Amino acid sequence: RINGARLLQRLKALGQFGALEGGGTNRLALGDADRAGRDWTVAQMQALGMRVQVDAIGNVVATYAGTEDLPPVMTGSHIDTVRTGGLYDGNYGVMAGLEVVATLCDAGLRTRRPLQVAFFTNEEGARFQPDMMGSLVMVGGMPLEEALAVRAVDNGATVGAELQRIGYAGGAPVGAPQVDSFVELHIEQGPVLEQQGVEIGVVEGVQGICWMEFTFDGTSNHAGTTPMALRHDAGMCAMRTAACVAELVARYGGRQLGTVGALQLKPNLINVIAAQAVMTVDLRNTDGAKLLQAQAEVLAFARQIAAENGVRFAHRQLADFAPVAFDAALVRSVEQHAGALGLSTLRMPSGAGHDAQMLARVCPTAMVFVPSAAGLSHNVREHTDAVQLEQGANVLLQVLLERANR
Amino acid sequence: RINGARLLQRLKALGQFGALEGGGTNRLALGDADRAGRDWTVAQMQALGMRVQVDAIGNVVATYAGTEDLPPVMTGSHIDTVRTGGLYDGNYGVMAGLEVVATLCDAGLRTRRPLQVAFFTNEEGARFQPDMMGSLVMVGGMPLEEALAVRAVDNGATVGAELQRIGYAGGAPVGAPQVDSFVELHIEQGPVLEQQGVEIGVVEGVQGICWMEFTFDGTSNHAGTTPMALRHDAGMCAMRTAACVAELVARYGGRQLGTVGALQLKPNLINVIAAQAVMTVDLRNTDGAKLLQAQAEVLAFARQIAAENGVRFAHRQLADFAPVAFDAALVRSVEQHAGALGLSTLRMPSGAGHDAQMLARVCPTAMVFVPSAAGLSHNVREHTDAVQLEQGANVLLQVLLERANR
Ligand SMILES: NC(=O)NCCC(=O)O
Ligand SMILES: NC(=O)NCCC(=O)O
Repeated sequence: RINGARLLQRLKALGQFGALEGGGTNRLALGDADRAGRDWTVAQMQALGMRVQVDAIGNVVATYAGTEDLPPVMTGSHIDTVRTGGLYDGNYGVMAGLEVVATLCDAGLRTRRPLQVAFFTNEEGARFQPDMMGSLVMVGGMPLEEALAVRAVDNGATVGAELQRIGYAGGAPVGAPQVDSFVELHIEQGPVLEQQGVEIGVVEGVQGICWMEFTFDGTSNHAGTTPMALRHDAGMCAMRTAACVAELVARYGGRQLGTVGALQLKPNLINVIAAQAVMTVDLRNTDGAKLLQAQAEVLAFARQIAAENGVRFAHRQLADFAPVAFDAALVRSVEQHAGALGLSTLRMPSGAGHDAQMLARVCPTAMVFVPSAAGLSHNVREHTDAVQLEQGANVLLQVLLERANR
Repeated sequence: RINGARLLQRLKALGQFGALEGGGTNRLALGDADRAGRDWTVAQMQALGMRVQVDAIGNVVATYAGTEDLPPVMTGSHIDTVRTGGLYDGNYGVMAGLEVVATLCDAGLRTRRPLQVAFFTNEEGARFQPDMMGSLVMVGGMPLEEALAVRAVDNGATVGAELQRIGYAGGAPVGAPQVDSFVELHIEQGPVLEQQGVEIGVVEGVQGICWMEFTFDGTSNHAGTTPMALRHDAGMCAMRTAACVAELVARYGGRQLGTVGALQLKPNLINVIAAQAVMTVDLRNTDGAKLLQAQAEVLAFARQIAAENGVRFAHRQLADFAPVAFDAALVRSVEQHAGALGLSTLRMPSGAGHDAQMLARVCPTAMVFVPSAAGLSHNVREHTDAVQLEQGANVLLQVLLERANR
C-alpha cells in the first residue's frame, strides 16, 4: 500500500511552482514555473535513488533499477499545466509514480524489470501545439526538428530555445523507446465517475482529437458607414463558423464534441469592422470516421463563408490524432487489481488526450482514472478527494508490480 | 470662393500634432497631442480676430462678430481622432470653418448674424464613452457631472481631470446654447459618394446608433472531457449571439447594420471552454422603430442562449441615439448651393455619428459630405482629394452666408 499522506504532500509541494492567488497553478510548458517544477521533481527522483535522463525534447525519465536488465515498465504523465490549471491534472500521475517507487524503497523491494517514472514535455498544448508533444516526439510520431521549431503562442519563443533556456535540452535520443509497457494514472477531468458513484475508471482508449486554427483576413472599416454588402468582416466569418460548430455538434449527437476556446479579433474595437480573426476549433469523437466527417464539414463551412464575404481564409492543422484503443490484457489487469482492492470500476474512453495514447504506438499501454469533483479540470477548482487519490495510486502500484515482475 | 491651398495648409499643419510614422494621426481626446492641436487651433482662431470661449466640458467656440447682435450661425466639428486616424475626419469641418472666416476677413466682409466656428470635446468616443460627448453635454443631453466623471479606457483618468490638466476646463456654461442654426462639413467616411461618382452628399439625417456590451459568465472546463449537455460555454453564447446579429441584419435588410467589432474570451485557450466572454454589438438603422426592434431581438436572443446554457448574462448600454432628421429647409439650402456651384449631389443619411446630431436637438441643423477614397475612415489611409475638399468648403461658405445674412 502506498502512503496517501506523502503523495498529497508531494502534490501540494509541486503545486507551489506557478501557484495562482486563490488556488490553482499556472505552469505553462517551458516557462519559468515549469523549470522550477521540473528542478524540484528531478530532485525528488534523485532523492529516491533513481537515475534521471533528459531527452532531446525535454522529456525526463527516472529509472528505479530492477533485478534484471530487461525493458522497463514505465509510468508517468506531465507536470505542465494550462494558464488556469489545477493541482492534479498530470501532476498526480507523476507524483503517484514517485510514491510507488518510494513505497518499494521503504520496503527494500526491487521488481524484476526496471521501473521508470517519466514526465513528458508540453502535454497540455496550451503554449505550444500540438499537445502531447514530448511523448509524440519520443515515440517517433513527430520529427524532433519540427517540434523544436514550434513557436509559443504567448511570446513567440521556440520550443528549442526555451528548452535551452531552462536547461532541459537533454542528450538522450528520441524516436524508439525500448519499453515493456506503459501505465498512466490520471484524474478523469470529466463528470462520469462522480455522477455514477464509481471509484476507478478503467480506460479502454482515447477518443480522436482534431485541432484546427482558422485565420480570416478581411478589411477594417467604419461600422456605421460601410453597407453590409460591401463588408469584408473577418470577425463575423469566424463567429459564424463557431455557431456552425455548435450546430454540427447538436446534429451529430452521440459522442461528438466541439469547442471554440480561442478567438482574437483585430483591431477589436466597438465601431470598427474586424480586419482579422484567428480562431481555434477543437473537435473530438470516439468514432474516427465521424470525426473526419465533422472536420471536413467545419472546414468547408469556414472556406465558404470566407469566400462569400470576400475574406481570405487560411487553415493550420494543430493536432490530428485518431482514436486509440489500449492493450486488452493491460486494461483487464487494471480492472482486476481495482476489483481485488475492493474498488468499483467502470470501463470508459478518455475524453482528454494523454501521453499514454502516444506510448500506445510502441508498447502495451493502459490508463487508470480517478474521479474529478464536479467534472472540473483546466480550472483552478479542479479537485479529487485524498482517499480517491490514494485508491488510484494503490491500483497503479499493483498493476506496475504485476507487470514489472513478469 | 474659399482658398483651397490655405485650407489644405491648415489641415496638414493640424495633422502634425500626434502624427504617426508613415501617415495618419493619433490624437485621442484630451491627451497631450489633443492639447497641442487645441492650442494651435485656438491661436488660428485668435489670429482671425475671433473671440474664443471654452465651456465646462472643453468645447471651444470662436465667434466672428456679425453686424447685429443676433443668435449666431455655428459651424464646426471635432479635432480628436481615433488611435489610428486620418487627417480629415472632424478636422476638415473645423479647418473649413476657419477658412470661411478667413475668406470673409480677406474680403473685409461681415455677415448680419455672428458666425461661430466650434470644435467639440471627444467626438470619437475612442478614449471616453459615449462618443459625441462634448456636443451632447452642450445641448443638455448628458449631465455635466456625469460626463466629467467618465474614465479613459487607456489610463483611467477622468474627463474632468484631463480637462484641468490640459487647461480646457473652461468657464462658459453648458446646457442651452443660443444658436440660430448649425451646419457641419465632414468627409463621408463611407463608399457611397465615390461609387456613385457624386461630389457632394446632402445629408438628410443621422441613422440611429445602439451600442451594447454583453458579458457572459460561464464555467471554464476541459474541451475533451465535458459532455456537451453539461457545459456552460460563455464563448459559444457570445459567438452564437454574433451569428444572430448577422442573421437578423440579413433578415431585416434595408438600412439595418450590425457589427460585432470586439470580443474577448477568457482564458482564450484552444482546449478550455471559455469561462467568460465580453462582446460589443453596434446596431444602426435610419428607422428608429426597426432599430429598437433589432436591439430587443438581439438582447432577447443573448438572454435566452445564456439561460439555455446556464450562463450568467449582463448588459450595458454604451450609447443609445435615436435617428435624427435634419432641418428640411437647411438641407434644401445645401442642395441648392451645391447645385448653383455646378456640383453633383446625392441626398443620403449619415452612417456615422456626428456632433450635428446633438446640435439638431436645439436648432435647425444640416451636414455636407465630401467623398472618402475607397470609403476608408478610422484608418491612416483615409483620403479625400484636394479639389473635393475645396468644393465642400465652398458649399459650406454659401450655406453659412445665406443663413447668417437672413
Ligand atoms: N489531459 C489533458 O488535459 N490533455 C490536454 C490535451 C487535451 O486537450 O485533451
Ligand atoms: N464620425 C465618427 O466616426 N464618429 C464616431 C462614432 C461612430 O459613428 O461610430
